[in-house]
Amino acid sequence: MFKKRINAQKSRELFLNSFEPLSQIEILPIEECDGRIIAENIIAGIDVPHYRRAAMDGFAVMASETLGAGTGSPVMLRLANTMEKGACIRVHTGSPMPEKSDAVVMMEDTVFYGDKVEIFTQIHPLKNVGAIGEDVQKGENIITRECLLRPCDIAVLASLGIGNIKVFKRPVVVIIPTGEELVPRWKKNLEDGEVYETNGLMSAMYIRKWGGIPRLLDIVTDSPEKINEAITSNLDADMIITSGGTSVGKRDFVPAVVESIGKLLVHGVGISPGKPTALGIINGKPVLCMPGYPVAGIVALFFYGKAAFRRLGRIPDEPERIVQAELSEKIAGRTGYKTFARVKIDNGRAIPLATTGAGILSSVSKADGFVIIPENIEGRNAGEKVEVVLIE
Amino acid sequence: MFKKRINAQKSRELFLNSFEPLSQIEILPIEECDGRIIAENIIAGIDVPHYRRAAMDGFAVMASETLGAGTGSPVMLRLANTMEKGACIRVHTGSPMPEKSDAVVMMEDTVFYGDKVEIFTQIHPLKNVGAIGEDVQKGENIITRECLLRPCDIAVLASLGIGNIKVFKRPVVVIIPTGEELVPRWKKNLEDGEVYETNGLMSAMYIRKWGGIPRLLDIVTDSPEKINEAITSNLDADMIITSGGTSVGKRDFVPAVVESIGKLLVHGVGISPGKPTALGIINGKPVLCMPGYPVAGIVALFFYGKAAFRRLGRIPDEPERIVQAELSEKIAGRTGYKTFARVKIDNGRAIPLATTGAGILSSVSKADGFVIIPENIEGRNAGEKVEVVLIE
Repeated sequence: MFKKRINAQKSRELFLNSFEPLSQIEILPIEECDGRIIAENIIAGIDVPHYRRAAMDGFAVMASETLGAGTGSPVMLRLANTMEKGACIRVHTGSPMPEKSDAVVMMEDTVFYGDKVEIFTQIHPLKNVGAIGEDVQKGENIITRECLLRPCDIAVLASLGIGNIKVFKRPVVVIIPTGEELVPRWKKNLEDGEVYETNGLMSAMYIRKWGGIPRLLDIVTDSPEKINEAITSNLDADMIITSGGTSVGKRDFVPAVVESIGKLLVHGVGISPGKPTALGIINGKPVLCMPGYPVAGIVALFFYGKAAFRRLGRIPDEPERIVQAELSEKIAGRTGYKTFARVKIDNGRAIPLATTGAGILSSVSKADGFVIIPENIEGRNAGEKVEVVLIE
Repeated sequence: MFKKRINAQKSRELFLNSFEPLSQIEILPIEECDGRIIAENIIAGIDVPHYRRAAMDGFAVMASETLGAGTGSPVMLRLANTMEKGACIRVHTGSPMPEKSDAVVMMEDTVFYGDKVEIFTQIHPLKNVGAIGEDVQKGENIITRECLLRPCDIAVLASLGIGNIKVFKRPVVVIIPTGEELVPRWKKNLEDGEVYETNGLMSAMYIRKWGGIPRLLDIVTDSPEKINEAITSNLDADMIITSGGTSVGKRDFVPAVVESIGKLLVHGVGISPGKPTALGIINGKPVLCMPGYPVAGIVALFFYGKAAFRRLGRIPDEPERIVQAELSEKIAGRTGYKTFARVKIDNGRAIPLATTGAGILSSVSKADGFVIIPENIEGRNAGEKVEVVLIE
C-alpha cells in the first residue's frame, strides 16, 4: 500500500532538502561554457578598455580650443600627428586618444580640406572619450560564483582575455526503465502485452536538454533483484530515475527496493496524474521513481525530476515559458491534488485535451502545455483566463 | 552615409521576406532529434496499444456477471486461466485482456482467497479496459511536418516503433568578426588600441544555442578586399553574420562590400542601440551586419539575427521568457527607435543599468533582460509595471 499521500509542494520540499548540490568542478575553455554554472568568482585582471579610447569617428582635440565654436562660427584647427596648441588628430571609434587630447569632435560636426579642419561645435572635456575601465574596472568582481553563463557573459570573459574557467560538473543521471511489458523500440512485430519503451528515452532526452548527462539503461524486468542490481551498480551517478513499478500491484517493486537500499521518503503524492510517484535517497543521491503511465511519468519528471536536477546542478530558477489564454471549456481539478491538465493553444484559446487517461502518451505530444489547477480549486471554467505553462 | 533609416519592424519584415527557409533534409535516429524540425508527416503504422489492455491491476471479468455486486453483497467468481461463465482472470495494468472478458475489477474492490474472488462492485462493460488504438490509431497523422520536436514527441515516435525520421538540416551560419583593433583572446599583453574579439564568439554561441551550426572565422581587418574574400569564400553557408565596420566612418566597409556582391536591403535601422545595423542578401542568403559596439551588436543579433535564423531553419515562434517587474526609476526611449533598455531584476523590481554606452559589454552581462520601449513612447516611469524580456 502507499505510504500516506503527501501534498505536492511539501513532498517536493522534503525531497529537495534531503540532498546537497554537487560540488565537483571541472576546468573548461570558455567557449564550451554556455549554459554551465560557474564555480568561481571572476575578478577582472585588466581594465576594459585598458587605454583611453575615442568613442566616435572624428578628431581628437583639446576641448578648450573649441570654445565659442558654432554652426556659423567654426574654429579652425590644423590636422597633425601629435597634439599641440591649434592641432587636432584624426581618430576612429576605438582608437587610443592621443596624449594631451581630451575630447573627440564627431566627423559630422566638421568640414576638412587639406590639413585644415573646421569645427562647428563647442565640446567639453571627455566628450566622446571612453575612459580607462569604463566597461570593466580592474579588480571588479565581474561574474559571481553559481551564475548560469549565457553567451553574453562568456563574451565578457573573453573581453578580459580569460581562456579557461571553473564550472560545476554536469549531473550524471542514470535512468532505469522497468516493466516486463516493455520492449526496445527496434523490436519488430509486437506480441500482445508488449509495449515499446518510451519513458526512459524521454527522460534521458529531458535530462540532456536540461544540461545533464543521461545514462539510459536497458529495460529491467519486474524483479526486485534485477531492479536492485540496476540501481546498486550505478551508484556512481549523481541521481537516479526509475520508470514503472511504483504502484501497489503485485508487480510493483521499485519503492520497496529503494527502501531496502536507501531511504524511501515519500510514496504517493498529491499530483494528478502522477499519484504513484515515489521519492527516495540512496547514498545521499536523489531517486525519483516515476509512474510507468506516460502522462503520470512526465508530470512527475517535470514537477520533481527537473527541480531535483536543477538543485543538484546548482542551476538558478528561471521562469517557465507561459502563454495567457482563454479556456474553451471547463476543466476539473482533482480535490487534494495539484492537477496538470493538458491543453492545446489555438488562436488565443486553451483547448483541453483528454483530461483522463494517464496512459495516453499522444495527448502530451498533442498538447502545447499544462494548465495547473491548485489543490484547493475545483476546476477552471470555460471563458476563464488561464496561464498555460508550455511543455518544453 | 546611411541609407534612409528604416523602422525596426518594417526593416525586419523586409529582411525576412527576402529569403526562403531551407529545404534540405537529413535522416536521423529519433534520439538525436530533440529540438529539430521534422520534415515529414508521421502517420501511425500501428495502433497503440495494438491489443485490448487492462488499465488497472485486478481481475478481468464479463461485466454482466458483476450485476448487483456491492459493498454488502459481493458476487463470487472463480479464479481461472480462461474466460468462461463464473470465472475471472488476474490481470496487471497493461496486460492483454483475456478473450471474452470485457472489464476489469480493480484489486481494491475485491477480496480473494484460494481460487475464490469476491467482487464488491458492479461494473459496466469496458470499465478499466484500454481499447485498441486508444492512444494512437493506425493511420492517424500523429506529428505534422515542420513541428519542433520535444522529447515528449519523440517518445510518441518511439511508441510507434519508429527509429529514424527526416528532419530539416540545421542552418550553417558563418560569422565574420571585422576590425583592425581586434585581437584574438589568446593574445597576451594588449597594446593601446587593441581589444579582444568578443562579438564573433558571442554570436557563434547564440547560433549554437538556437540550434544552428556556427562557423566562426578568424578576425578580418578593415579592408574591403579581405572582407569580400571572407564572405565570398563562405557562400556555402546558409547565413552570414558580420560584426563591425557598419557605421559611416573611414574604416566602415562592410555594407558597401555586401552591396558589391549581393544586395544591401537596409543600412541604418530604428533600433537603439543598434542603429548602424545593415541587412542584405547574397545569393539568396540573409546577411546580418552587426554594429561592432557590443551592446548594439547583441540587440541587432537578437532582433534581426534570431528571427532570420529561425525562419531559415523553419523553427516555429515561441514566446520569450518574461518577468513582470516594477520599474525602479524612469527610463527614456529614443524617439523613432525601438529602445532596448538593460535592466537587472531584484526582488520584483527592474533596475535600469547604464542606458547609454552601446560599448559597455559588461552592462549586458549585468542585465537580466531588456525592457523594450516602442518607437512612439517617450519612456517608462518609475513605479510602472513593465515586462522584462530575459536575456537568454
